Amino acid sequence: MINEKMYALGSTRSKIRELFEYGKTLAKEIGSENVFDYTLGNPSVPCPEKVTKTIIETVKNPAVHGYTSAQGTMEARKAICDYNFKRYGFLLDKDLTYLTCGAAAGLAITLRALISSPNDKVLTFAPFFPEYKVFTENAGGSLIYCKCDEKTFDIDFDDFERVINSDVQAIIINSPNNPSGTVYSPSSIKRLAEILNKKQNEYGHAIYLISDEPYREILFDGAVCPFIPNYYDNTVVCYSYSKALSIPGERIGYVSVSPNAENAQKLYLAIAGAGRSLGYVCAPSLFQKVIEHCVDEVSDCSVYKDNRDLLVSNLQRLGFECANPKGAFYVFMKSPIPSAEEFSDVLKTYGLLVVPSDSFGVKGFVRLATCVSPDLIKRSIPAFEKIAKLYNL
Amino acid sequence: MINEKMYALGSTRSKIRELFEYGKTLAKEIGSENVFDYTLGNPSVPCPEKVTKTIIETVKNPAVHGYTSAQGTMEARKAICDYNFKRYGFLLDKDLTYLTCGAAAGLAITLRALISSPNDKVLTFAPFFPEYKVFTENAGGSLIYCKCDEKTFDIDFDDFERVINSDVQAIIINSPNNPSGTVYSPSSIKRLAEILNKKQNEYGHAIYLISDEPYREILFDGAVCPFIPNYYDNTVVCYSYSKALSIPGERIGYVSVSPNAENAQKLYLAIAGAGRSLGYVCAPSLFQKVIEHCVDEVSDCSVYKDNRDLLVSNLQRLGFECANPKGAFYVFMKSPIPSAEEFSDVLKTYGLLVVPSDSFGVKGFVRLATCVSPDLIKRSIPAFEKIAKLYNL
Repeated sequence: MINEKMYALGSTRSKIRELFEYGKTLAKEIGSENVFDYTLGNPSVPCPEKVTKTIIETVKNPAVHGYTSAQGTMEARKAICDYNFKRYGFLLDKDLTYLTCGAAAGLAITLRALISSPNDKVLTFAPFFPEYKVFTENAGGSLIYCKCDEKTFDIDFDDFERVINSDVQAIIINSPNNPSGTVYSPSSIKRLAEILNKKQNEYGHAIYLISDEPYREILFDGAVCPFIPNYYDNTVVCYSYSKALSIPGERIGYVSVSPNAENAQKLYLAIAGAGRSLGYVCAPSLFQKVIEHCVDEVSDCSVYKDNRDLLVSNLQRLGFECANPKGAFYVFMKSPIPSAEEFSDVLKTYGLLVVPSDSFGVKGFVRLATCVSPDLIKRSIPAFEKIAKLYNL
Repeated sequence: MINEKMYALGSTRSKIRELFEYGKTLAKEIGSENVFDYTLGNPSVPCPEKVTKTIIETVKNPAVHGYTSAQGTMEARKAICDYNFKRYGFLLDKDLTYLTCGAAAGLAITLRALISSPNDKVLTFAPFFPEYKVFTENAGGSLIYCKCDEKTFDIDFDDFERVINSDVQAIIINSPNNPSGTVYSPSSIKRLAEILNKKQNEYGHAIYLISDEPYREILFDGAVCPFIPNYYDNTVVCYSYSKALSIPGERIGYVSVSPNAENAQKLYLAIAGAGRSLGYVCAPSLFQKVIEHCVDEVSDCSVYKDNRDLLVSNLQRLGFECANPKGAFYVFMKSPIPSAEEFSDVLKTYGLLVVPSDSFGVKGFVRLATCVSPDLIKRSIPAFEKIAKLYNL
């Protein structure tokens, strides 16, 4: 009488996690110097020194390890709102802000709060983080998605208008995007907001826009990442400090309902209820203190730009097709053969671990996480050269 | 289109959390010295020094903050199994052990893994932790419970045999018990196991016994807490370090499926799948390191015994009825009037914050958490004296 769906989820694992585990095994077999693991978005730069100092200072008082209120300490919530105001000129409400165990938890509980019926749909844009489907289905709804422009990976608005329907309760966007690295421009966000406002009127109900933005601070070449509550009222910001502070294992982030959102208070309470029902008692208390004190810190992310430049220039030189991402730490490369799964399996035999794009809702690409050491990239180039020859690029 | 159930959960809050928040407000109004907050099971003793030292030592390497495997590091899982073997002579399997964000997360995902149909029932014994109902219902099943002997708070086996039925897929026990402090004796556990084995044969399916044991290390007067996998094969241990290490806000614990359990591997994978679907990426990585190094540490819990002695002796002297708990850090006191809610409201006007028993599945009691300072207990006695006079005890 074991739940078969959960068993299937647990035994298949996410493709990314599976490759990550495979990489650890392979390293034991052929030596870690021969494995070029581009699979996991595990930040390669250290956390800011202030994070370490704050932890060391904070743990001198053991009371820091106690329970906090379910929504997080007032101090941490206030620090988050102050920071966003300073940075984006938009005043989030600390009483509509809820600290979470990372963005995954934030998404899972926000979707649980927004889905009421098996007919409810959540819409996202390919390519998208595969767990959106898992969280949506766990919350009792289903995920639909629009295709993208396969050159720019921007929203295909024609397809969006075709696909959206009155069952859609929520939209998830992820910019800078995992896996494509695309950053939606202010004009894209404006157009999205216009369509959503029109559709809300047409359908007679709110459509909440969940902005999953853990890569918000990792931008290149002067790219700007618009702060969504400035553009659309019914916004829920889902943030994680995993990437900005390089602490992904510590599970700390927040959900903040825009004070301009319809039924903002009710939605916030439903998010709190969902947090409770999924077993989230409070976000880790030591890291709530870290956020309180380090909210305006960012790890030195310059290596991600250097890595992107190094990898993209070499891949393009070798004849591979890949766009130059404006943010996050991924390169999304076109597979020279139709099946990305098959291509990924070939790469594996050369020690190159990459994630095929199928689970991201796009066929024929592979994702390379560039949060690795520059040395790993350099050492991996000969393997890519062999692959290029193999496919006559 | 906000989920009404989640909204109801979020806006009612658990009674315990609600009183905890009320206490913080009251302290601001009448001064914290006049508020005697017995509501929240927030350990009052500091974490062992080794925990602090481990944190300070560990964060010197910022790589510690990276993602771990979803089930937790091999080192932490091995340390947990080694410790339990040394302590209880039972060898748990590190590959059936899954680190969680505390016991609440462990329970939520284990129930999600075990419930497949809306007919599925989970059975527990009053008095019980109210969130069992929330987690069970979120997983799609329903919670039923047996009454208890209101003197000893032991299992009422006659009622158990009346209530159990073939829809029951899982049983939750919690010993030492929150809220009664009762510790089930080895003979009680043996009898429970016998009945369950009989019922499994009768129903033709496994009945998993979830042992929720965060208070396992807090025992008084020579009481012994049996390790359930030694008594019953289909056991899942749900443990939390919240109480033993006094780090409840850090959300770290584990679930371990007994290697003797039917379909142990399948259940473990379903637990991993449930963790994934609820948004648990991994348990906080810094605290996984803490567990690896501090698995055999326990906070100095002697104050909980002193507190129990001080409070129980005074309450009994004043004419209140309460059992002498053998474990955990709660005193379960009989209300002198039928309604525990009403009694709790009267106590509030004297600055005494206690949790009425209704949400624990028993009427007419209040729970006093004794994880407070001895000084608070002493200062609260005059208020209890006034209450005793009020009710002519």
